[in-house]
Amino acid sequence: MLETTIAAIGPLDQTAMAAARDLQARLTKPAGSLGALEELSVRLAGLAGTCPPPLPEPAAVAIFAGDHGVHAQGVTPWPQEVTAQMIGNFLAGGAVVNAFARQAGASVTVVDVGVATPLPPAVDDAADAPRLVAANVRPGTRDLAVTAALTRDEARAAVETGIRVAEDLIAAGAGILLTGDMGIANTTPSAALVAAFTGADPAEVTGRGTGVDDETYRRKVDVVRRALHRHRPDPADPLGVLATVGGLEHAALTGLILAAAARRIPVLLDGVIAVSAALAAAALAPDAVGAMVAGHRSAEPGATVALRHLGLDPLVDLGLRLGEGTGALLALPVVTGAARVLHEVATFDAAGVAEK
Amino acid sequence: MLETTIAAIGPLDQTAMAAARDLQARLTKPAGSLGALEELSVRLAGLAGTCPPPLPEPAAVAIFAGDHGVHAQGVTPWPQEVTAQMIGNFLAGGAVVNAFARQAGASVTVVDVGVATPLPPAVDDAADAPRLVAANVRPGTRDLAVTAALTRDEARAAVETGIRVAEDLIAAGAGILLTGDMGIANTTPSAALVAAFTGADPAEVTGRGTGVDDETYRRKVDVVRRALHRHRPDPADPLGVLATVGGLEHAALTGLILAAAARRIPVLLDGVIAVSAALAAAALAPDAVGAMVAGHRSAEPGATVALRHLGLDPLVDLGLRLGEGTGALLALPVVTGAARVLHEVATFDAAGVAEK
Repeated sequence: MLETTIAAIGPLDQTAMAAARDLQARLTKPAGSLGALEELSVRLAGLAGTCPPPLPEPAAVAIFAGDHGVHAQGVTPWPQEVTAQMIGNFLAGGAVVNAFARQAGASVTVVDVGVATPLPPAVDDAADAPRLVAANVRPGTRDLAVTAALTRDEARAAVETGIRVAEDLIAAGAGILLTGDMGIANTTPSAALVAAFTGADPAEVTGRGTGVDDETYRRKVDVVRRALHRHRPDPADPLGVLATVGGLEHAALTGLILAAAARRIPVLLDGVIAVSAALAAAALAPDAVGAMVAGHRSAEPGATVALRHLGLDPLVDLGLRLGEGTGALLALPVVTGAARVLHEVATFDAAGVAEK
Repeated sequence: MLETTIAAIGPLDQTAMAAARDLQARLTKPAGSLGALEELSVRLAGLAGTCPPPLPEPAAVAIFAGDHGVHAQGVTPWPQEVTAQMIGNFLAGGAVVNAFARQAGASVTVVDVGVATPLPPAVDDAADAPRLVAANVRPGTRDLAVTAALTRDEARAAVETGIRVAEDLIAAGAGILLTGDMGIANTTPSAALVAAFTGADPAEVTGRGTGVDDETYRRKVDVVRRALHRHRPDPADPLGVLATVGGLEHAALTGLILAAAARRIPVLLDGVIAVSAALAAAALAPDAVGAMVAGHRSAEPGATVALRHLGLDPLVDLGLRLGEGTGALLALPVVTGAARVLHEVATFDAAGVAEK
């Protein structure tokens, strides 16, 4: 399934992109005055292979949840049980991602791809309540500081879970996928992935996550450095990198991104967990970058390093470091707006407006 | 009317702000993880005087349109008639502001506060079509390079038009006002206003507007410099500054901002025209800044200088330089999201989620 998905990923359609550039130049606004939205609209046209590209709706957020053996190293002050507890909060509609998804009209799907502790029962049975997909590959990764986080088969299973979730959401009509994630301690494997794929130093890509003190921060950097030294992850073997220093939600997000690219549907990336997974996707299929839209610039330093490596500029930069898909949801109206301009704005000719 | 409005403007409510900070700390997310949205939510609570603050909806965009005598100095390659032609485009729903307003569910009101050429007839009589308010103070300003742009009475009339428009929109239920503007050549008076109120050099605050070449740019900077030298606008006399080097849409926006602040309704600022008018509003009533939310960072350099002077950080930074209210509309979901978090997100206690 992974190989089939990768084989289906191709470059952006240059003809559609040229048509979008031409249309942008004829719309009733000064050339270039919509800034980054203009090039975004061109990329959306290239991805869809048509101009104007379809409006990216409805939107579907997929939150992949997993736990991390590296939690044992004391890289976060939060108890591991919070991963499962937050799934309960997502399913009850009480998290920030739910509030932002309601506002944006986006669906929320929660995928247990590797939670370590028991999930609370769902309490909300409303028709539009978030759906839970049970796809637990294993109850959390192993501790990457002492051994490989996953076997190669486990990593592949998680990637293929992400592909399946994306295929289901697209089959149900989704016009854009948004990455979400939940996993206490997951900024540590994110930092390791960014360092492995970009060659950056662990100190440059490791951040304070949900808020760690100086001592915990030093320990976290040291854990990432030791993991890289122990496993020597090879960026030419992306599945091997995901297995040794990644997480189950990272692997699943890699699959989601690849499937979106294969189906030529835009995938709106959230924060550092998403962009570290995007590095794996780009290493597996370089053309997958054409489907990626960077939602926001996470406060985590690794996110900026990863975005630079991918050549992506984020749409929103508000110091967020929550995850869940919240930064992607804030950026969604910008993506929709960029596509909408090509559908709805009059040309100089049609509107009887003089040009300069 | 201006004096009554100014007298009604007061400081943010510290009790409501403290309540919002306390609530933010108890919501199911790491402290500070929503970045700039957290402080924004606190300001909205302080403005409303209650926590949580009401959701800022429905949203109303007011586009003030005016022409500029300084057009005669060759500061723009666009013919003056485009101001009136674009009003036709707004009323027909064909401009970018219309597309973004439809997406955001915002109403659009177009106010002729000083267009110089005949307006085209409205063609769209749908119930939700943009409304045109006829409030022409005079057919464009005089040329600020050679004389005062407006008399003091004309400037006051335009300010009071803005107040009236804001009062009408708020009476009709608007929960947030968005600034819009249209006026060929209006980045020239904007630069002059920013220089006058901040003391910045004309070369620092003058930009290329809708796209001028090097020669036109040099002429534009020179026009601003000569106008400041001729009129010596005194920032302690904000109405005098608006009259000598401003524009009719700038004066009206100043009134709109003041009225929003007086009614304790947030006003979401668009680009350089809006923030230069906001400088006048802040000079007239320093507490008015509490009602201002900076929508985006315009590509015009004067916008950044003005935002710094006002102490405001913009929500969106995408290189836009279109005006019309487009940057404010892109930022609207961020403002709504910030308020929504305080309404809809569960607390740690209520959700049964452990804290660190």
